[in-house]
Amino acid sequence: MNEIYLAIGCSAAALLTVVFLARSVLKRDPGNERMTRISRLVQVGANAFLKREFRYVAVVVVVVAALICAAPYLKPGIALGWKTAVAFLAGALMSWCAGYIGMSIATRANSRTAQAASSAGLRGALSVALSGGAVMGMSVVGLALLGLCLIYILFKGDPAIVNGYAMGASLVALFARSGGGIYTKGADMGADLVGKVEAGIPEDDPRNPAVIADNVGDNVGDVAGLGADLLESYVESIIASVAIASVLGASTLQSAPFAIAGAGIIASIIGVLYVKFFGRQRPQTALMIGTYISAGLTIVATWFIVQHLTEPREGYPAMGVFYASVAGVLCGVIIGLTSEYFTSSKYSPVRNLAASSETGAAVAVTEGMAVGMQSTAIPLLVLAIAVVLSYRFSGMYGVAIASLGMLATTGMVVSVDSYGPIADNAGGIAEMAEMDPDVRKITDNLDAVGNTTAAIGKGFAIGSAAFAALGLLSAFMKSTGVSLVNVAEARVMAGVLVGGMLPFLFSSMLFRAVGKVAFQTIAEVRRQFKEIPGLMEGTVQPDSSTCVDISTRGAIRGMLLPGIMVIAVPVAGGFILGVEGLAGLLVGAVVTGVMLGIQFANSGGALDNAKKYIEEGFHGGKGSPAHAAAVVGDTVGDPLKDTVGPSINILIKLMCVISLVLAPLFVGG
Amino acid sequence: MNEIYLAIGCSAAALLTVVFLARSVLKRDPGNERMTRISRLVQVGANAFLKREFRYVAVVVVVVAALICAAPYLKPGIALGWKTAVAFLAGALMSWCAGYIGMSIATRANSRTAQAASSAGLRGALSVALSGGAVMGMSVVGLALLGLCLIYILFKGDPAIVNGYAMGASLVALFARSGGGIYTKGADMGADLVGKVEAGIPEDDPRNPAVIADNVGDNVGDVAGLGADLLESYVESIIASVAIASVLGASTLQSAPFAIAGAGIIASIIGVLYVKFFGRQRPQTALMIGTYISAGLTIVATWFIVQHLTEPREGYPAMGVFYASVAGVLCGVIIGLTSEYFTSSKYSPVRNLAASSETGAAVAVTEGMAVGMQSTAIPLLVLAIAVVLSYRFSGMYGVAIASLGMLATTGMVVSVDSYGPIADNAGGIAEMAEMDPDVRKITDNLDAVGNTTAAIGKGFAIGSAAFAALGLLSAFMKSTGVSLVNVAEARVMAGVLVGGMLPFLFSSMLFRAVGKVAFQTIAEVRRQFKEIPGLMEGTVQPDSSTCVDISTRGAIRGMLLPGIMVIAVPVAGGFILGVEGLAGLLVGAVVTGVMLGIQFANSGGALDNAKKYIEEGFHGGKGSPAHAAAVVGDTVGDPLKDTVGPSINILIKLMCVISLVLAPLFVGG
Repeated sequence: MNEIYLAIGCSAAALLTVVFLARSVLKRDPGNERMTRISRLVQVGANAFLKREFRYVAVVVVVVAALICAAPYLKPGIALGWKTAVAFLAGALMSWCAGYIGMSIATRANSRTAQAASSAGLRGALSVALSGGAVMGMSVVGLALLGLCLIYILFKGDPAIVNGYAMGASLVALFARSGGGIYTKGADMGADLVGKVEAGIPEDDPRNPAVIADNVGDNVGDVAGLGADLLESYVESIIASVAIASVLGASTLQSAPFAIAGAGIIASIIGVLYVKFFGRQRPQTALMIGTYISAGLTIVATWFIVQHLTEPREGYPAMGVFYASVAGVLCGVIIGLTSEYFTSSKYSPVRNLAASSETGAAVAVTEGMAVGMQSTAIPLLVLAIAVVLSYRFSGMYGVAIASLGMLATTGMVVSVDSYGPIADNAGGIAEMAEMDPDVRKITDNLDAVGNTTAAIGKGFAIGSAAFAALGLLSAFMKSTGVSLVNVAEARVMAGVLVGGMLPFLFSSMLFRAVGKVAFQTIAEVRRQFKEIPGLMEGTVQPDSSTCVDISTRGAIRGMLLPGIMVIAVPVAGGFILGVEGLAGLLVGAVVTGVMLGIQFANSGGALDNAKKYIEEGFHGGKGSPAHAAAVVGDTVGDPLKDTVGPSINILIKLMCVISLVLAPLFVGG
Repeated sequence: MNEIYLAIGCSAAALLTVVFLARSVLKRDPGNERMTRISRLVQVGANAFLKREFRYVAVVVVVVAALICAAPYLKPGIALGWKTAVAFLAGALMSWCAGYIGMSIATRANSRTAQAASSAGLRGALSVALSGGAVMGMSVVGLALLGLCLIYILFKGDPAIVNGYAMGASLVALFARSGGGIYTKGADMGADLVGKVEAGIPEDDPRNPAVIADNVGDNVGDVAGLGADLLESYVESIIASVAIASVLGASTLQSAPFAIAGAGIIASIIGVLYVKFFGRQRPQTALMIGTYISAGLTIVATWFIVQHLTEPREGYPAMGVFYASVAGVLCGVIIGLTSEYFTSSKYSPVRNLAASSETGAAVAVTEGMAVGMQSTAIPLLVLAIAVVLSYRFSGMYGVAIASLGMLATTGMVVSVDSYGPIADNAGGIAEMAEMDPDVRKITDNLDAVGNTTAAIGKGFAIGSAAFAALGLLSAFMKSTGVSLVNVAEARVMAGVLVGGMLPFLFSSMLFRAVGKVAFQTIAEVRRQFKEIPGLMEGTVQPDSSTCVDISTRGAIRGMLLPGIMVIAVPVAGGFILGVEGLAGLLVGAVVTGVMLGIQFANSGGALDNAKKYIEEGFHGGKGSPAHAAAVVGDTVGDPLKDTVGPSINILIKLMCVISLVLAPLFVGG
């Protein structure tokens, strides 16, 4: 149990870091009146979204909690009940709070970053933006681990209860990722299609009524959404390890995950502080060094933990748990680097894609999809190898530990990822407040770095989601006593087929929802341009709150049906196909989900950066036919990488965690 | 054994029908000098492709045959050797001959259909086009079943030998489908992008040097490719049933598939003759009635066969085999109807897609992908139900029989499908030879019907490929004695992950190959427009043979790497992951392959028909912004539905059949 208290201490350290960083951000100069006004609009918009989303989340969470409480009345003797419901509520609460804190600071860090760029230059701006991002990163890991430890202590580590915590985190993540994703891309497409394409005004132009919604979307989708996504993976990787260890009856294996997670938090804090205070290199380099420091320290700490904590298990190497975690770390790094290769304009895939844009929009889109599909090869091979190795090193427990190894440095990863949208917003504010071009140059530089880190982060998110899902799947099979999921059985095969279909159906729903929001936004922006006199001349302010409202409503409505599907299908599958069939269903969903997730993230990233590459002056530069084609490609790619792809992460994890929690319902008739 | 001779009799009847129909086509008036010249250019182009393709196919087939012969020297005592090689060669030969005969008649039926449209009206033209298509359809089933029966008799039904026949058919199908697919879409995109978009001349304009290649492509891809694809599924569904029955040691179950296949041939002949001589309804209705007649007769015949031939098996219903085959037939019908719903402009998906084109190309493409993804839901649910039911009715044998039930009427299905490209070509000839607008109207009408039948046919092809693959998978597991493919095993899970990735990687390769051919074609057409004086004025003929040559070379080069991958991966997978891991790999490939296959076929079909719907005058009609957006969508969708989607059918089947044939290499160390 000592490890649990150690983990609580580490979480507390993370939360102290949050307080320290938040204060360091808030005491910066928020800039002139114009900048603060814009920043306030973004804050108000973000708050409006969070408030409305909260109502829906609260209803769903309460209903699910009630159902969990009611389960023993439906099936007496079942290991569900109010305790699991409490754990579930705690998980949901922690995820929600982390998102709320992170968003509050991120939407305040934007104007301060722009101001720092003008007063303190590149380094100063980087420091503010990263501090803002790290508030999110440290809130995520601090709150997630703290809540988990408390629930664990409170309910004496009973997995049937503690697993509920992950389900709560997962449900909130669904809203944050899918809802946020629909919001951000609906607003973005709407703003771009009317503003840039029809009215011919630049991106982030203050006259465009949808620009504020677009900027809100960056925070909603990329800060809150990504944070909730990785928080979920993080919690699930710990819980999967603990659940498997509990079936194995090995108490040392049960506490090791807490120690590793705690060590990862400390390593992440060191990484963040390094970049903030010592990173004198170029931003990209500084962030990478920080990330590698965190990963390296975590590996070293894990070595000591495994050495001293766990006992050797028969049939596995003595340090097997350590090897498994290293396999996970390496797998995460390689998947991240692959994402960078396929989405950065430094390498041939994006450059060829830019060249193919000369042949027109259709070829650009096709080539963009081809790049994404091709990019699945290495991650999947690496994932398969990591699964085989970690299994060999430490059995199913090893698979879960590998996923934890990958996710131990979540604090650092989320910090770096959340930095991106803050830099992006700062650029928007610099543009809208018509600041000095030199300031815009600095924010553009920070933004470009943010794009690369975002691509790596997305690769990491899907890779870790896949691994977390595999961990949960292992836990599900271990805890239901299903050692045999035989695809030679028709029910299992049917499960695999239906499960494989779900990510496709889910994706189609999200595509539609984004299209709907974009469509409504376009109509509204057109209306304002036509009906508000003086708007195009810049003498009158646009009514940006209507656009925020359209996105908010559309996002929440659009995610209800896919959300219900994700929750209902595993339950229905469990009752109809039995535990084995349900396991098959999960396998099918994980397999196609991972492929689509990687494909979408990298297709979108490549199309985005191909457009930016052309804008740098290649293949005719801005305004050329190649650029027009690339803009179409980018518009296709945007919802792929920011809405559908990331939501699939949640799809596969949520289905697995629901199955794990509700497994008692399907077992033993 | 009597059933085998019965089947030989039925094949002979099919081949007699081929002779009768071919003569009835050839004795028709091929039209005026201009029409025959164009038709001859298409024939020459098609021949050039077939000849060059033959060289590559021959080399690959001989090498593989040699390896099969050499296997016993590598692993003494193995059940491979010259006999399997002979069966393999026979399968390849039959598939090749069927394609050759079908293509020869199809490329001669085009001008005759156009001429019949001018002299005998709609009915006459339908009769010629269908007869041309039925030559392909009857050649496919007649030759496939005849060859299989002879091999079966020659080698006394030893599955280790007979399975080689399916592998031969599959290898040729790979070349026909992938190579043909690259050819047809590379030429099509090249012709359209320069001709329609740049030079502003209509489709099928005789001045466009790539038009002949485009017309050749219709035959190469849609006649030869589809025929080889369904021939493969057809053979494999019989072989899978026979192989499983042989493991079960049930001789009646072993001969029943031959009887069912034979009955299906007779039913198909009746269906074709009905449409040719009695179908007085509108073309669409006549073709559907013919198809339903064939299916109905096959079901009735199967009832008698099962009643009289097979003995009841313990644990299964007495008529279980019959029920399983009906489940397969219904599954095929529902998948076909779903395809129609999602790709026909009569229903809301395509109409909404057309409406969304008003918002621009990016939205059209996104919506097109969403339609395809959504369309996977029903087919996969139906497939899963059919698997569960047929398994319950008759175990693994039932799964294979369901696939045979679906494929027994292949003769009719291929006839109807091959009719489409003939009608399409006839339209092209009417345009190029500047025939009367009334003639063009008739051919357009026939072509529109062809588009619907093509969509249904594509749905059927992927559905049957999935089922055939499942049948082969069952046979693979039965014959290797693997009753347990446990995804809770890391190696199996790794296999599933890697297998699931293959269709994505394979697709990206084919996208690239199409792009390359299109790119080269565009350069060549531009060159000719610039360098050949008098071409644009119509006084000089274009040099169409260069374009044919570009497509031919590009198609064959482009399919080599993906082809090698498809062959090499199961072999490598078997050695590295063992039989269970290989089974996992096949499951993964089948699952993602089926999803992508359905998505691509229906996305492409929907985008194509949304464009045609707009061209009918909706949403601004031809020349409107919505039309421009829909053209981009169609260009993205074309390679999806005609190259990548259909090739995935072969990918999953070929991997399964290679594994089945080479299984002895991986079993028992």
